[in-house]
Amino acid sequence: MPVKIETGREIKPPVVYTRYKLTLAYDGSAYLGWQLQPHGRTIQGELEQALTRLAGVAVKAHGSGRTDQGVHAVGQVAHFDLPRRFAPGRLVKALNAILPPDIRALHARRVDASFHARRSAVSKEYRYYIWNHPVMSPCARQYRAHVAKPLDVRLMRRAAACLVGHRDFTAFAANAHRGEVCALRNLSKLSVGHKGSEIVICAASDGFLYKMVRSLAGFLIRVGEGALPPEETGAIMAARLRTARVPTAPPQGLFLWHVRYR
Amino acid sequence: MPVKIETGREIKPPVVYTRYKLTLAYDGSAYLGWQLQPHGRTIQGELEQALTRLAGVAVKAHGSGRTDQGVHAVGQVAHFDLPRRFAPGRLVKALNAILPPDIRALHARRVDASFHARRSAVSKEYRYYIWNHPVMSPCARQYRAHVAKPLDVRLMRRAAACLVGHRDFTAFAANAHRGEVCALRNLSKLSVGHKGSEIVICAASDGFLYKMVRSLAGFLIRVGEGALPPEETGAIMAARLRTARVPTAPPQGLFLWHVRYR
Repeated sequence: MPVKIETGREIKPPVVYTRYKLTLAYDGSAYLGWQLQPHGRTIQGELEQALTRLAGVAVKAHGSGRTDQGVHAVGQVAHFDLPRRFAPGRLVKALNAILPPDIRALHARRVDASFHARRSAVSKEYRYYIWNHPVMSPCARQYRAHVAKPLDVRLMRRAAACLVGHRDFTAFAANAHRGEVCALRNLSKLSVGHKGSEIVICAASDGFLYKMVRSLAGFLIRVGEGALPPEETGAIMAARLRTARVPTAPPQGLFLWHVRYR
Repeated sequence: MPVKIETGREIKPPVVYTRYKLTLAYDGSAYLGWQLQPHGRTIQGELEQALTRLAGVAVKAHGSGRTDQGVHAVGQVAHFDLPRRFAPGRLVKALNAILPPDIRALHARRVDASFHARRSAVSKEYRYYIWNHPVMSPCARQYRAHVAKPLDVRLMRRAAACLVGHRDFTAFAANAHRGEVCALRNLSKLSVGHKGSEIVICAASDGFLYKMVRSLAGFLIRVGEGALPPEETGAIMAARLRTARVPTAPPQGLFLWHVRYR
């Protein structure tokens, strides 16, 4: 028979957690990337520290995806649960008062507990910026990849057109791709813009393989330099094998631009 | 009666110096400004070090004008004399191999010995960039001034129009202006551009007083915020006195854009 034990302790009401969706921008130059690491500064680490300080309890943040060391974001999305309700505008201001100036909270929204920054995302857009001039622009050196040789944008566009669609992108994933069982992705957009010395590659997809955008950029740069004819794009893709013909472009040109949710 | 003394020394042919005009871009974030200082890094100091290493003799560089600590340039011009003739393209490459990545030589040209980077300049253009959004963009934080309050560009343009012309700019010079005897300048252009969160002020003149562009920007920001009506521009100018009504905008938004020569 159960016996009721008087503990003398006051029974606290259960803590109700509220889930928040946060949009973030960051300059990735000083960080090891998004994901928490045992040593060194990461975006996730800085965000969790700020949230933990704000909430008074340990808070875990979940990003829409990892960004690599040196990669930037203008629209990264994260979710987390807080034991208190914050007005979204106040939460943004409070976070920006704690976060370092190279990480900024842009806007917050209360969301249903079923929302998940990674799993609820339906598509993502990345932009890859190139400074195409014999001399690198000093103020752009941390935010643009430098390509000294003149790039032929028309060749890049022809190759890009062959990559759009629902395809197997094994040839454009890093060799050690992180246990992704299927390399089929729907690349809905791959455009090449051009203004003065600046070239920008926009890539949108339902999902990207590990280092896929930097591989697409590396490939398009080679095509633009005239080192690879755009006509070979189909054969490279069909080989379903990552080779040295597809180089990985440097991280500082890459921006996680936008994550779309239903 | 003069006596000819045989010294036994070989007589070397006289060294012929060649004058060069160099266009430079720099990220001013890490420097105390253009001008050589007894302590700390300056753009002039880095350039003279690189030139001295290249020439094997001490070389002095003369800029078109000083830029303050934290101010950037996309088209600063300097002249110097070298005891050897360099092909201009080779000189640019050799300098960029020595200079740090936040200072870049863009192009060089051999010029007549009468050319002087400061005295031969007929006009200069500066641009002042503002990030006008409640939250600062992390990747722009070293290259844009942050104004959180929404700016009314139409008000700024109305005030700017009252400033253009041949006028006494004492009200827009730093109090401790550096012994400039005359504050009359011909401000040939003062425009306010606008795209998304970015606002850019372009100012062109035959010459600028000390901190004049940052004072014009600080004034236009106050007008845009609604703190000063544009109608007061004339009276502020006519007072020929620098007061607290004209603040100096922060250095990181300012770029020396172009120096024009005859």
